[in-house]
Amino acid sequence: MEVVDENLVYKELERDDLEFFDFTDAKFKIFGLYEAGEYFNESLVKRMPQDIADKVNPGVAGHNRSAAGGRVCFITDSPTVAITTKVAPPHGANFSPISGSGYDIFVKEDDGKFTRKSVYRPKEDPSLPYSAAFGFDYTVIKPREMIINMPNYAGIEYLKIGVVKGSSIEPLNPYRTDIDPIVYYGSSITQGGCAGTPGNAYENIISRRNNIDFVNLGFSGNARGEQAMAEYIAGLKMSAFVLDYDHNAPGAVHYSKTHYAFYKTVRDANPNVPIIMITRPNGRVDPVSANMYLAVAKGSYECAKAAGDKNVYFINGFDLFGDEDPDICTVDGTHPNDLGFYRMAEVIGKVLDEALKNRK
Amino acid sequence: MEVVDENLVYKELERDDLEFFDFTDAKFKIFGLYEAGEYFNESLVKRMPQDIADKVNPGVAGHNRSAAGGRVCFITDSPTVAITTKVAPPHGANFSPISGSGYDIFVKEDDGKFTRKSVYRPKEDPSLPYSAAFGFDYTVIKPREMIINMPNYAGIEYLKIGVVKGSSIEPLNPYRTDIDPIVYYGSSITQGGCAGTPGNAYENIISRRNNIDFVNLGFSGNARGEQAMAEYIAGLKMSAFVLDYDHNAPGAVHYSKTHYAFYKTVRDANPNVPIIMITRPNGRVDPVSANMYLAVAKGSYECAKAAGDKNVYFINGFDLFGDEDPDICTVDGTHPNDLGFYRMAEVIGKVLDEALKNRK
Repeated sequence: MEVVDENLVYKELERDDLEFFDFTDAKFKIFGLYEAGEYFNESLVKRMPQDIADKVNPGVAGHNRSAAGGRVCFITDSPTVAITTKVAPPHGANFSPISGSGYDIFVKEDDGKFTRKSVYRPKEDPSLPYSAAFGFDYTVIKPREMIINMPNYAGIEYLKIGVVKGSSIEPLNPYRTDIDPIVYYGSSITQGGCAGTPGNAYENIISRRNNIDFVNLGFSGNARGEQAMAEYIAGLKMSAFVLDYDHNAPGAVHYSKTHYAFYKTVRDANPNVPIIMITRPNGRVDPVSANMYLAVAKGSYECAKAAGDKNVYFINGFDLFGDEDPDICTVDGTHPNDLGFYRMAEVIGKVLDEALKNRK
Repeated sequence: MEVVDENLVYKELERDDLEFFDFTDAKFKIFGLYEAGEYFNESLVKRMPQDIADKVNPGVAGHNRSAAGGRVCFITDSPTVAITTKVAPPHGANFSPISGSGYDIFVKEDDGKFTRKSVYRPKEDPSLPYSAAFGFDYTVIKPREMIINMPNYAGIEYLKIGVVKGSSIEPLNPYRTDIDPIVYYGSSITQGGCAGTPGNAYENIISRRNNIDFVNLGFSGNARGEQAMAEYIAGLKMSAFVLDYDHNAPGAVHYSKTHYAFYKTVRDANPNVPIIMITRPNGRVDPVSANMYLAVAKGSYECAKAAGDKNVYFINGFDLFGDEDPDICTVDGTHPNDLGFYRMAEVIGKVLDEALKNRK
């Protein structure tokens, strides 16, 4: 079985025509992270203040150092964009090194759409540093807008971005400036597990479609609806909030005790921000549990409506994978694959668009 | 980063109420494999005669021992189905242990549809043996039809299937008996790289839809259109043949020299078998090369038509991912993710259905 398909093998970058800049350099603009560049316990990035994450629970404290939702944005006329990086990788049988520790790059095409041009692929052992380059196939060389998505499941030990020497680089904001980011809170599914590539997590797909920035506060296995998290989120500047921790609440009773309280804390501080409540997408795998949790979240939504909330929305998780072959939308029964995430992006994106249009 | 999401972790099977049977036991029926049970160089399975594979090239000789397209089918009233297995796993940054070395199980529901009920997940190190069980959630216990898909990228050192002691087990043929299998020949994409789970490779999706058996002759990195392979395939009993080795032909000249000859060898021996020619699904990544190969295959198709062939079909690979976000349909630019495979299954499945209906 030791016969090799060259397409499946990592290749080391060997070029001396490139110059590299730290991703925290002012040449780049970073989105989706609370902090980037201050080295903290195996990662240069944090998604929320570490002292608050520490208070929430140890799992949130740990996963706070993963780069989920992090993006590096810039404009360059370089015909090649390279990275050299070392990440603190996660391990799991249900995701690949690319899925957990890879990067992907999207370039704005002439039709105005950010289109994926390449994936930066870690080594088979994702704990090893790696470098990779992508040469663009454009016939006209001109400044182009680019987004590099950072790994959804890995901390960043270092990340440098390379361009052909002498190329222009400028920071880029590819997002609407008239609207604050969307904030997502939830479980591993929210964090992006197990999209095949970072940019295929549902938040990224939605963001490329609606051109709105976002913050990914998904904490694999550890989103338990704590009040400290609710208070932190309540204080964020945001255009909408997506609440989904169905899978991580330790029991329906706990879910019931925390769900409305979480919503209420965010709502009280943000009277006009649309709040979208979501339940698990893979409910068919364990319908008894899924329906119990569904009833809790639905009840919370009904309470909010009854209390006069005109900016609250509910998505029944059973609808997230659609009616056609929902059974094959996960990699392991729990985590969406790229088909599952794509369908989630369609359903959630539509509700978000509607909610943002109809804000009251 | 050492905080664990329990959903991402392998759990060892610990039950003593199960009895296990070798997958080659007469209680099961095996589909998609030429041979299963004769131990040969790290794998019990072969997809074609090893002596012919050896003649084709060393890559085909090696990948012939992977279980791509292999299925174990049976009827049981057991409320749990377990496996214990050791595989000769592949390695790649672009697939997960589940993707390369996992199994999945589909059960026929009351609506007549085979529905995925669970995934059997290898350990993080997929070279280690593992055991896993899935307990069904049915309230009525009765004999049910089941398909276990074998790993697309791994050889099988052993595989035993377990049921609750005393349960019934009978071999099952879940496929139409009035029609021969469909044969697919091609590259890693045909082999199933990099579907998230074995059953999400496009051939499996099509087979569950049209209830027709199939043989997967995808040879990662090594499908070069050799005449010896064409002659072997020409001798198979089949209802349709899908020809796709675009990605592995070493250059457009080689492709041009072998493509029509391959087709002609299969056609001469099978005058009425629909032959579907396909080009690479991810042509947008490297359109110059993709269009060159496309021209070759299209030319081959036009020649076949001009020679009076009424059972030949052509699928332009650029259509396989559709028009909406084709850029995010791969895991690495080359290999389809589950979104990509799903879209391929729709396009190829439709052409196959049409071709089988209109056979002349």
